[in-house]
Amino acid sequence: MPTYQAQIYVTLRPSVLDPAGTAVQSGLSHMGYDNVSQVRIGKYVEVTLAAAGDAQARQQLDQICDQLLANPVIENYRFDLQEQATSPAVAGAGLAG
Amino acid sequence: MPTYQAQIYVTLRPSVLDPAGTAVQSGLSHMGYDNVSQVRIGKYVEVTLAAAGDAQARQQLDQICDQLLANPVIENYRFDLQEQATSPAVAGAGLAG
Repeated sequence: MPTYQAQIYVTLRPSVLDPAGTAVQSGLSHMGYDNVSQVRIGKYVEVTLAAAGDAQARQQLDQICDQLLANPVIENYRFDLQEQATSPAVAGAGLAG
Repeated sequence: MPTYQAQIYVTLRPSVLDPAGTAVQSGLSHMGYDNVSQVRIGKYVEVTLAAAGDAQARQQLDQICDQLLANPVIENYRFDLQEQATSPAVAGAGLAG
C-alpha cells in the first residue's frame, strides 16, 4: 500500500477573533516591528499515512480533520498531499565509478 | 510601501520528540485510523506586514521568526511570501453594462 505525506493547515475562520495572534502582533510592535499589521495563528500538522490511493487518502484526511484536528465551527482546514517514494530502487544510481 | 502576506511554518526539528503528535496519532489509532504512521505538530502563522521590498520583508521575517515565533534550538521555520494587491484599481472592470 503506498505511503502518503500530508501537510494540514488549520486556520481560524476569518470572522473569529484570534487573541493569540493579537498578542503576538502586540509583542512584535513592542519589539519595534510596528509595520506588522496582522498576525493570525493556526496549526500545522504533518501526517504520514498508508492508503490504497490518492482519493482514499484525501477522504481519510477529510474525516481526520473534521473529527479530530479542526473544530469546524470556528476553523477551516486545507491540506497538501504527496505520495512518498516507496523503495530505494535507484539508490545505487549516481555513484561515481 | 507595499504590503506583503507571509505564511510561516514552524516545525520541530526531526531529532526532537513530539509528544503532542504521538498523542494525536494514538487518538487516531483508537478511532480506527491505524494506517496513520506518524503525526508531527507545528505552528502556522499568517503575518501581514509593510516593507519597502521583497528582500526587506524576508529579512524582517527571518528576524521575527528567530526572535519570537520559533525556538531555534528545537524548531525549524520556513515561510512563503507574496506581495498583496495594493489598490483596487480595476474594481470597476467586468461590470456588465
